[in-house]
Order: sequence, then C-alpha cells, then structure tokens
Amino acid sequence: MTAENQVSVIGLGDMGSAIARRFVDRGYATTVWNRTASKAAPLADAGAATAATAAEAVAASPLTVLCLLDGTAVEHVLASLDGAAAGKVLVNVTSCSPAQARANGRWAHEHGAAYLDGKIMGDPPYVGTPNIMLSFSGANDVFTAHEATLKELGPITYLGEDAGAAAVEFLAQVAVSYELLIGFLHTLQLVQAEGFDVTEFAERAAASVAAHPPLLTTMANAVKNGDYAPDLGPLKVQAALMDDLIGHRECLGVDALRMREIKGLMDARIAAGHGDQGFSSLFAQLPKPTP
Amino acid sequence: MTAENQVSVIGLGDMGSAIARRFVDRGYATTVWNRTASKAAPLADAGAATAATAAEAVAASPLTVLCLLDGTAVEHVLASLDGAAAGKVLVNVTSCSPAQARANGRWAHEHGAAYLDGKIMGDPPYVGTPNIMLSFSGANDVFTAHEATLKELGPITYLGEDAGAAAVEFLAQVAVSYELLIGFLHTLQLVQAEGFDVTEFAERAAASVAAHPPLLTTMANAVKNGDYAPDLGPLKVQAALMDDLIGHRECLGVDALRMREIKGLMDARIAAGHGDQGFSSLFAQLPKPTP
Repeated sequence: MTAENQVSVIGLGDMGSAIARRFVDRGYATTVWNRTASKAAPLADAGAATAATAAEAVAASPLTVLCLLDGTAVEHVLASLDGAAAGKVLVNVTSCSPAQARANGRWAHEHGAAYLDGKIMGDPPYVGTPNIMLSFSGANDVFTAHEATLKELGPITYLGEDAGAAAVEFLAQVAVSYELLIGFLHTLQLVQAEGFDVTEFAERAAASVAAHPPLLTTMANAVKNGDYAPDLGPLKVQAALMDDLIGHRECLGVDALRMREIKGLMDARIAAGHGDQGFSSLFAQLPKPTP
Repeated sequence: MTAENQVSVIGLGDMGSAIARRFVDRGYATTVWNRTASKAAPLADAGAATAATAAEAVAASPLTVLCLLDGTAVEHVLASLDGAAAGKVLVNVTSCSPAQARANGRWAHEHGAAYLDGKIMGDPPYVGTPNIMLSFSGANDVFTAHEATLKELGPITYLGEDAGAAAVEFLAQVAVSYELLIGFLHTLQLVQAEGFDVTEFAERAAASVAAHPPLLTTMANAVKNGDYAPDLGPLKVQAALMDDLIGHRECLGVDALRMREIKGLMDARIAAGHGDQGFSSLFAQLPKPTP
C-alpha cells in the first residue's frame, strides 16, 4: 500500500458517504470518521476502516477530505486535531464562506498542514460521474500533487492559490441557480393563476433557458468592457413591456419584486441617455458594492 | 395573385420591418404602413406597397400583422380602422397585457374581424429562422387557416382559443429570463468585488445554467402534483449554506434580496416539518396569489 492510494474522509452525511464510497470503489485504502459513529457502518461493510476520532482519521492517511454540514462544524473538527494535522493535506469540501476557507488555510499553515478548499456542485449520487462539478483552490503544488486523487470525485476546475476562491465560486454559482429557480417558482404561480398547465409551460421555459448560456458570456463581456450592445433588444423597446408585465403580476397577486427593480433600472438607464443599449447595461445602474 | 399570398404589416420598427421584409422575401404581395412614413422606404425599395393609412393597409390584404410599440399604440390603430376590419384577420404581435389582447379580440369580434394574438421571443434578425419562438392564441380555425403564412416568421406554438394566452406566455417567459439575468448581473458584481474575472466566471455559470432545463420540468411536475422530492438536495442541507451566502454578499455590499427571501422560505418550510423536501417545495411556502 503506497501513500498515493490512502485517503481519509471525515463527515458521512449523504455527500461524505458518497465520496468515501467512491474512494473505496476505486481501490483506495479509505479511513472514515463521523461524529455519529453508526453512519460509518455501511462504509465499514464496503471495506473502509473506521477511526475512533477525527485526529485518528487524519493520522491514518496523507490526505483527508472533510465533508461536514457547515463551516462551524469544520472549525470544531480542526480544533480537535491537535498535532495530527502536521505534514498532512486537508481538503475541505464543506460549504462555507470564503472567509472561513481562508481562515482554515491559515489554521493549516500554522499547524504544519497543507490546505485545499473545494466545493461541489451536484448531488451525492453523481459523485464520480461527469454530472457533477468540483472547484478547488489553494496552493498550486499541493493541488497538482493530489489532482489525480481528487479527480476520482468528478471533473475539477482549479481556481488559483486563494483558498477562498472555490467558496466564492460556489456561492456565486448557487446564487445564479437560485435566482433562476425562485423566479421560476413565482412565475409558475402566475401560470397557474391564469389556468394554464405548469408542466407544459415548464417545457417551453426549459427550451428558452437552454438558449441562454451564450447570452451569459456575451453579457459578461459587455460588463467587463463597459461596452453594452442592445442584447435582448434596445432598452427603450424592452422597457415598453414592463408596465404590462408588472401590472399583470400585481393584478394576480404574484411577486413582481425583481420586475419592479428592472423597470427602475431601465428607466434610469434610458433617462441617462442609454436607451439604445441592452439588458447588460443595467449592470452600470446597479448600486455599487462596498469598496 | 391569390389571397393566400397577400399580407399587410402595420408598424415598421425593427421587428415590424423584419416581419415585412420576410414576407417580401418569401414572395408575398406585402403592403406596409407606419405612422412615420419614412420607415417604409427600405421596404418599398424591396418591393412592398405602401399604404397611406392603417385602414388602407388592412383593406389591402386578407391578413394584417400589427407590430407596434405597445398595447396603447394598438388601440389607437384599431380605433382608426373604421369599417376596414370587417371580414379581415388581424394578427397582433405587439407586446401587450393579456387583458389588452382579450379586449382586442372583443373589438375585432364587434367589428366583424377575426383576431389572433401572437408574441415573439427573439430578436428581429432571427425572424424567419429557427432561432426565434412565436406563440399564438385565438380562434383555432382562424389560426389553422393562416398557420402556413405565420410560420414564415419562425417556429410557432399555438396556445388555444383564449386570445390572452400568448400574452400570458410571453410575460411569463420574459420574467423567467429577466429573473435569471438580473440575478446574474448582481452576482457579477460579487465576482468582480472578489477580484475574479467575470467572463471566466460567466463561462462556468453558462455551463451550469445549461444543465438546468431538465430541473425546470422536474420542479414543475413537483408543483403540479404537490409531491416535492429533494431536488438540489434536502432543504435542511441547502439551508445550511444560506447564512454564508447572504453574509458574503452583504459584507461586499452586493444585492441579497432573493437570497434573504429564499432563506426565509427555507426556514419556514423546515419549521413546518418538510426539511427532507427540495427547493421546489418552496413553492408551497410562497404567499398565495389573489383568488
């Protein structure tokens, strides 16, 4: 048994269990630990070794994946490791804030360990398949040394040395997805209130959403360059339908929060003399982030 | 010249001009009218006849497409038609409210005309290509009789006899698109504030959005049946990241409007004992539309 195929997994919720199972299935000597020990039983049956403590799990392998509920749970586990982390690689795939990821990286550095932060977009059943997306950040040489092991979990994007980068990416990606989905749920209320079939509408909406990816890159380029073409048509034309759109929703008692915001941004952009620009130009009208 | 290849177009903005041009190119005897007459010149050069009034344009062909700025502009044109509408088919593709579309349908009925309401998702350059989506509603027999002519403009979905259906569809589709895009623009602020490249992020976000269409139909089915599987994972797991997500945005001064709403809906859904259900179950927590 070489070090390259020894791995530990701390945290055996649905995702942690799927990760540990994937390593077992791929022939890694896998050591697992979970606060509630009973969760380790199916993995022990599959051939994993069980550790009595998190420190024991970290000591058992050169690389340990941490997959817990949240950043606070990660802090508790790190605090329990004592000297076990020295010389080891800790890979945290727990969802946490960029600040927590960066703090974990500092903690690891102070305790003689290497740290990678990773985030997983996708569901546990897809671990080890192309239908999941992982992003990692942290020291490039550490990532490169362990890339083959981490790739067992799925396709990976490496986002650079900043330990917080994977968390930024994850929170940003989740927000884009949630914005789409909560807006979609509100609009299903509209469709239902008008007496139409929500699943038939959803199929047509899905076809429309499927056409959006190129628009996202076009709009990001416009934002980057501050050069706003009339994407989705000139604002002065787009704005003409906003009163109908908002009025229709409010008449039915359906959420119009974002639509009122968009109308306000469009009106301001047009008033500023940019009615020939497109939807992407609303970026220039957004309140500025804190410097 | 048979009636089947005569058509009139009222309103020669970018979209109306593209529609008229498509008919001319496909060999239709096309009559056009625009309030500002100079806009008709390029079409006249291409072979279209120009009418002196909207009524004259409607009188010239069995079918007239109206493509104006908004519902109010359509009302003004209809009011100017006097007796010219009798026995004709009016096809309104102007963006308007469902109520206006239904009122147009009643006006046409009272004036001895047939009425179809249509809405166009897509940009003028794509008229006549598969890269545009049209929806129509109104009397089935009228639609069927003129389907071949209307299909010259692009792929069509027929949504039923209710003249307002195409407008409902259009406003709902635009809202789904705008929700996605305004959320995306806000999140680009986050990415920029963290010092990352917005176009590289956009490419990854585009790949993620491209994976969403099947989820929309899955979620609509859940809404229709009230049977909420753990899509995107159980809410109790999803909710664990919301504080990080909201805190990160607010710390940077980036919009967290929808994220706070989602957190509130998740908390309420979990408190109601449904933490094992997925994102789609937030539908059941939305304020109910006006009955």
